[in-house]
Amino acid sequence: MKCSIPKGTRDFLPVEMARRNYIFDTIRDVFKVFAFEPIETPSLENLSTLMGKYGEEGDKLLFKVLNSGDFMKDVDFSQDYHKVAPRICERGLRYDLTVPFARFVVQHRDELVLPFRRYQLQPVWRADRPQKGRYREFYQCDADMIGSDSLLNELELVQMIDLVFRRLDVSVTLKINNRKILAGIAELVGAPDLLVDITVAIDKLDKIGLENVQKELSERGLTEAQIAALNPVFELKGTASEKLDSLDNLFSAIEIGKKGVAEMRELFGYISHAETSCNVELDLTLARGLNYYTGAIFEVKANNVSIGSICGGGRYDNLTGIFGMPNVSGVGISFGADRIYDVLTELEKFPDNLSQSTRVLFINFGAAEQAYAMRCASALRQQGISTMVYPDSAKMKKQMDYANRKNIPFVAFTGEAEMAAGTVTIKNMQSGEQQTVAATEISNVVRQ
Amino acid sequence: MKCSIPKGTRDFLPVEMARRNYIFDTIRDVFKVFAFEPIETPSLENLSTLMGKYGEEGDKLLFKVLNSGDFMKDVDFSQDYHKVAPRICERGLRYDLTVPFARFVVQHRDELVLPFRRYQLQPVWRADRPQKGRYREFYQCDADMIGSDSLLNELELVQMIDLVFRRLDVSVTLKINNRKILAGIAELVGAPDLLVDITVAIDKLDKIGLENVQKELSERGLTEAQIAALNPVFELKGTASEKLDSLDNLFSAIEIGKKGVAEMRELFGYISHAETSCNVELDLTLARGLNYYTGAIFEVKANNVSIGSICGGGRYDNLTGIFGMPNVSGVGISFGADRIYDVLTELEKFPDNLSQSTRVLFINFGAAEQAYAMRCASALRQQGISTMVYPDSAKMKKQMDYANRKNIPFVAFTGEAEMAAGTVTIKNMQSGEQQTVAATEISNVVRQ
Repeated sequence: MKCSIPKGTRDFLPVEMARRNYIFDTIRDVFKVFAFEPIETPSLENLSTLMGKYGEEGDKLLFKVLNSGDFMKDVDFSQDYHKVAPRICERGLRYDLTVPFARFVVQHRDELVLPFRRYQLQPVWRADRPQKGRYREFYQCDADMIGSDSLLNELELVQMIDLVFRRLDVSVTLKINNRKILAGIAELVGAPDLLVDITVAIDKLDKIGLENVQKELSERGLTEAQIAALNPVFELKGTASEKLDSLDNLFSAIEIGKKGVAEMRELFGYISHAETSCNVELDLTLARGLNYYTGAIFEVKANNVSIGSICGGGRYDNLTGIFGMPNVSGVGISFGADRIYDVLTELEKFPDNLSQSTRVLFINFGAAEQAYAMRCASALRQQGISTMVYPDSAKMKKQMDYANRKNIPFVAFTGEAEMAAGTVTIKNMQSGEQQTVAATEISNVVRQ
Repeated sequence: MKCSIPKGTRDFLPVEMARRNYIFDTIRDVFKVFAFEPIETPSLENLSTLMGKYGEEGDKLLFKVLNSGDFMKDVDFSQDYHKVAPRICERGLRYDLTVPFARFVVQHRDELVLPFRRYQLQPVWRADRPQKGRYREFYQCDADMIGSDSLLNELELVQMIDLVFRRLDVSVTLKINNRKILAGIAELVGAPDLLVDITVAIDKLDKIGLENVQKELSERGLTEAQIAALNPVFELKGTASEKLDSLDNLFSAIEIGKKGVAEMRELFGYISHAETSCNVELDLTLARGLNYYTGAIFEVKANNVSIGSICGGGRYDNLTGIFGMPNVSGVGISFGADRIYDVLTELEKFPDNLSQSTRVLFINFGAAEQAYAMRCASALRQQGISTMVYPDSAKMKKQMDYANRKNIPFVAFTGEAEMAAGTVTIKNMQSGEQQTVAATEISNVVRQ
């Protein structure tokens, strides 16, 4: 029987787990010190919660779970499969962490104290075509703060992004824009109703270049004059503050645009005093696809690595409106753990000692010695040191080989002499050095 | 629109997350110090991997995932739903962690160094009828060691169980038996081919009592004489060692029974020197349902709490045989996190401070003061202290209220006087005490 796993899914071996946990732990630690609290939602959601929230394409990519029992009862199978699917599947797999969070907030509104900061690290599933760096099961790491309009929240997200990538030792550029500025631009060129089309097209600037964006804008219904009117925006130069000054002039009578500029001025003012170390840019061509954003939008790219964005987010004025609870605003970010993994791999930024999970291996010399070794091992374990006693009294070479192949840094010998003296001989597998110490002193030798 | 989640699934709020993580962290820490390494397998497995591995009942309880795209193409819907399901669903959700581990070992056999110890903490899904304490999505926490027949492995599992529950401060009884002894008993009563029936019936002794077990044994084909021949086994009294002596006599010519007795003697000998603190019993009526066990079997119950087993496991001689790779033996245990959660709740054993996630709240007095507060907060966060600056300069009462409702132990005030002096006034919310300290000294006050 051939063993395999579904396309687009992965097994994680201990070395990969150690690397993934290094990323998750770094992100989680930052979420925690910024006073975010963990929540989890079920992997299975009612399809009625998920359908229609991710656009037509999203509905297609939802994994649907077959009803238990006689799922065929009373179902008309002569219909189109799009119509049959929701009749035989009541539940689907989590597609992102935002819609479930919105559902969570509505469902638990009486239990939550606002402002509420939640983080959530869970897998999501999408029936996308698998390709390099794109999986059907992958983790999202989201942090959202709801119930406050203060731009201090945006500042803290910037600080969090900065701290995560500083700790991961990855040089990044954080691009910031504001949806109100994009709305102002749409009004400026006389196409406020085409805001979504304009943002979708502008969003591709990085990928397809200015000419193709202009072509797409034309296809999406902008006139040549409107497209030309966009040019001053693409051509704004200078510092964030200079760009905002120019925009303020362009927006002379456009309220929403001026509001966006004022928000960005305040945020960039905060950032300038916040001692962040990453490169922060105001990028007026940053649009981000999701159309629920209404204020600041963020996107992070790793410098010197050609991969898409590794973190993104923004402010939304109406997270829970889709579930009938208006006026819950918030702002959030999402870290893409899988892409960060690829970046750290390419830059060789994973710490060296991650794969050393077992610290000490006791060689097994037989019945009497193994009892002594087990007692020494117990003491080390009580002190939090990962310790193994080789379970069989196999040949010495086999046991030493095992230590080498498992990358175990210390091997402990407890022969007759050691037992008589109450000592242990410890070999440092890297340096080859050997020393005999009292059994009570082992931890001092093997600790990092 | 009404918000709800599928029956048998749960949202976890921060307080529940803190409690669950306390359990997971305790178990994981013990797995780690015993040199187990983490792996993860996909939530989605090919149904061909899962079907037929959990019995007929298990097949029914598997969640099946609908194929993407036109799943109806070329499928004959006039058949029975049992036949249609595998045609329209190629994948299913993980049902336990054992079968995926077996598949993992076969698939990655060239990458694993034996003996291999893996732990795995992941959710599983079963379309069971939801009821109190039984969910459709729940976590399993498994540790298995493969590639060694040594009973030192069993000893280490006993030590791990002991350590986990000692750390959780739960008094437990660990029952141990051996499948070879059960096989010996089946031979003894002259029904070796009814071993599985006998174990299934005996397994229910705790729940339904001796009389009903005897009734079931009769229904399962044992004669009255055979049932009577079982009585001496039920009536064995004394210490583990005394019971084993009696069994040895009963088994005079039954090899497999004698082998089981010898294994138990060795294991109980190890345990007697291992300084475990939990109550360990040899229970000859312990059977455990899963019929892949071939040696020691374990089951843990909390003393003074009427709930089923909270941990169990055993030795198997042929983990990967179902996937065509013979002779991989091993032994493992699985902790039931959800039941342990219920036990800790009932015994009120969760540490008090788990729900204190945010340590310090800085009161927001307005633009100038908030900048100063943000700098103080950054310094605390760098030191790993969970800190929040209230994002709006709301009324003092509202901000203090927030600290109280969120159970935040320290509130920090940074008014004009503090800013001028480079200090912060900190209020201990429990004692009501207030003190003013240098901004650089805050961490000394708010640390536990």
